[in-house]
Amino acid sequence: MTEAAGPGACLGILGGGQLGRMLALAAARLGLRVHVYDPAPGCPAAQVAWRATAAGWDDAAALAAFAASADVVTYEFENIPLGALDAVELLRPLRPSRRSLAASADRLEEKTFLAGLGLATAPFAAVDGPADLPAAIAAAGLPAVLKTRRLGYDGKGQARIDAAAGAAAQLAAIGGGPAILEGFVAFEREASVVAARGLAGAVVAYEPGENLHEAGILRRTTVPARLSPRQRAEAVLIAGRILNALDHVGVMGVELFVTRTGLLVNEIAPRVHNSGHWTQAGCVIDQFEQHVRAVMGWPLGDGRRHADVEMVNLIGSEADAAEALALAADPAVQLHLYGKGEARPGRKMGHVNRLLGPARG
Amino acid sequence: MTEAAGPGACLGILGGGQLGRMLALAAARLGLRVHVYDPAPGCPAAQVAWRATAAGWDDAAALAAFAASADVVTYEFENIPLGALDAVELLRPLRPSRRSLAASADRLEEKTFLAGLGLATAPFAAVDGPADLPAAIAAAGLPAVLKTRRLGYDGKGQARIDAAAGAAAQLAAIGGGPAILEGFVAFEREASVVAARGLAGAVVAYEPGENLHEAGILRRTTVPARLSPRQRAEAVLIAGRILNALDHVGVMGVELFVTRTGLLVNEIAPRVHNSGHWTQAGCVIDQFEQHVRAVMGWPLGDGRRHADVEMVNLIGSEADAAEALALAADPAVQLHLYGKGEARPGRKMGHVNRLLGPARG
Repeated sequence: MTEAAGPGACLGILGGGQLGRMLALAAARLGLRVHVYDPAPGCPAAQVAWRATAAGWDDAAALAAFAASADVVTYEFENIPLGALDAVELLRPLRPSRRSLAASADRLEEKTFLAGLGLATAPFAAVDGPADLPAAIAAAGLPAVLKTRRLGYDGKGQARIDAAAGAAAQLAAIGGGPAILEGFVAFEREASVVAARGLAGAVVAYEPGENLHEAGILRRTTVPARLSPRQRAEAVLIAGRILNALDHVGVMGVELFVTRTGLLVNEIAPRVHNSGHWTQAGCVIDQFEQHVRAVMGWPLGDGRRHADVEMVNLIGSEADAAEALALAADPAVQLHLYGKGEARPGRKMGHVNRLLGPARG
Repeated sequence: MTEAAGPGACLGILGGGQLGRMLALAAARLGLRVHVYDPAPGCPAAQVAWRATAAGWDDAAALAAFAASADVVTYEFENIPLGALDAVELLRPLRPSRRSLAASADRLEEKTFLAGLGLATAPFAAVDGPADLPAAIAAAGLPAVLKTRRLGYDGKGQARIDAAAGAAAQLAAIGGGPAILEGFVAFEREASVVAARGLAGAVVAYEPGENLHEAGILRRTTVPARLSPRQRAEAVLIAGRILNALDHVGVMGVELFVTRTGLLVNEIAPRVHNSGHWTQAGCVIDQFEQHVRAVMGWPLGDGRRHADVEMVNLIGSEADAAEALALAADPAVQLHLYGKGEARPGRKMGHVNRLLGPARG
């Protein structure tokens, strides 16, 4: 399908966490029906979807029925088992495409792709096993971070390497490889660009945000980021270059390190991105609707922001009843909760978008 | 229950049209589960709800199971059969209360209530049958509008009376009574205030909007309305007075006539209101979330607008695929579609919120 799927069409979403939930809500605003596929019954997105299938990623019959019910299929995370993607793609367009997934699901392919575009990244080297460590350390420098090539998120599957001595044991601790060693970058701050590319190639970028991570988890995004006009323009151009190189269709998050020598690309995510949640309060068309518009073949919405916003994730018990009601009482706060039952430590339960004032700068 | 229902609680909604749908989407943003009750399977709100019950208004068992599943029950229209309300109220709090419903579901009680508050209305008189017509015409003047006391919306169940001669036939055509005769008001424009009252009595009003009706159906709301500062203040005070007099909990729409001699109250609706849809694009907390917050016992959100907005309803074929995609391509437009299947003439299929610029005035 290369044409727009009209109102009333069905969007299939692989993965039913908070990103799937907010995609489903945005799709519903546009009159679309949503079918969510996730192994977990009663997942956050299933609670708000027209249909939900709770079945495993290896359930070929369930995947086929899911795909058949949808006009277009998208996903909320980049680590969906490849067999499941194959089953869906037999029947319906998958957007963003496998190419966008391949360039982001494997950290070594991701860095290689970015470097191939001429974009600056942290120094990196492949580590297929302990024998590769000495050369990798020489290439990437120390300190460095050893990361599994696939999977791992929010700081999981990573180990900081300060000396060659313990590196082999740390590699073993994260699974023994295949891994990637990334040299530390002395960055001044972290920023990200959330941008979308439509089916016909139009690109719309949101204002870059400034991100603060804690323990490997995004804690806060502030918009606008503290960037010079030149850095801001460069950030948006980098995102456009990546989106176009991949013929990406949908939203993408591009994480950047701001250093004294320029912008480095840290990682890319071929989906709506935690650092784009501020658009719900700062823009008329938020990143979720933008993604839905893109994958359904609709025109992209305006990306301009009308307000400066600080987004703060609510992690673990920070979204418990008393805390949530106290946040709701703050007149500058827009509260979002994900309908997750158990508030485990480190689990993203919701977020707040705090209005800082009308857009400036 | 007089305390706040926390995140994860269930909101029951009686009625599953577009207002129920947008209430359900707002509740989902707050992490709430939504159970929709409507006789029509697959109604707009059911498509986005955690649970949906398709059963009749006289199905006592279904109503009891629905109420039992919810922490609080609200509704999207004021003409729900009284027996259904009784069944729900046996088990769970109904918000807004029966008092708010009684003051709005019957046009004679409504006008009597408003007049009792000292608020100006159109001249009116009860018409229980044809024998009442001469006195009613003398009291209300001509031309006038004869309306059924209960039910009727979007101009249905109404007849314009220009002369005493044909009045009895026109009364028969709308059911023979009980009816109300309302004298014509020479208004300069129509306005409305959408306001909310919380469980503890706090009142938050949105900026008054200016409404244009066509063939008895709301066509357009523009915010801000063309009102003098004094009229604007008076409009908000009128709304607050009505909400407080009813101990109303939730959002209410108060329709006003702007005349040379002052503001007249036309009608009130104890629910989210079509003339408040602009808040989705103009405010951080829209009328739907505001209503959910109020009925769940949460703090009310800020009612300030950040943008001037024009809301236009999409009626009948105006939301067909080609039209919807053309509207989506307008960068100043936020599009809302309701997931209704058949685009019958006069049926509200969606709306657009058009951004006019940052809030002024």
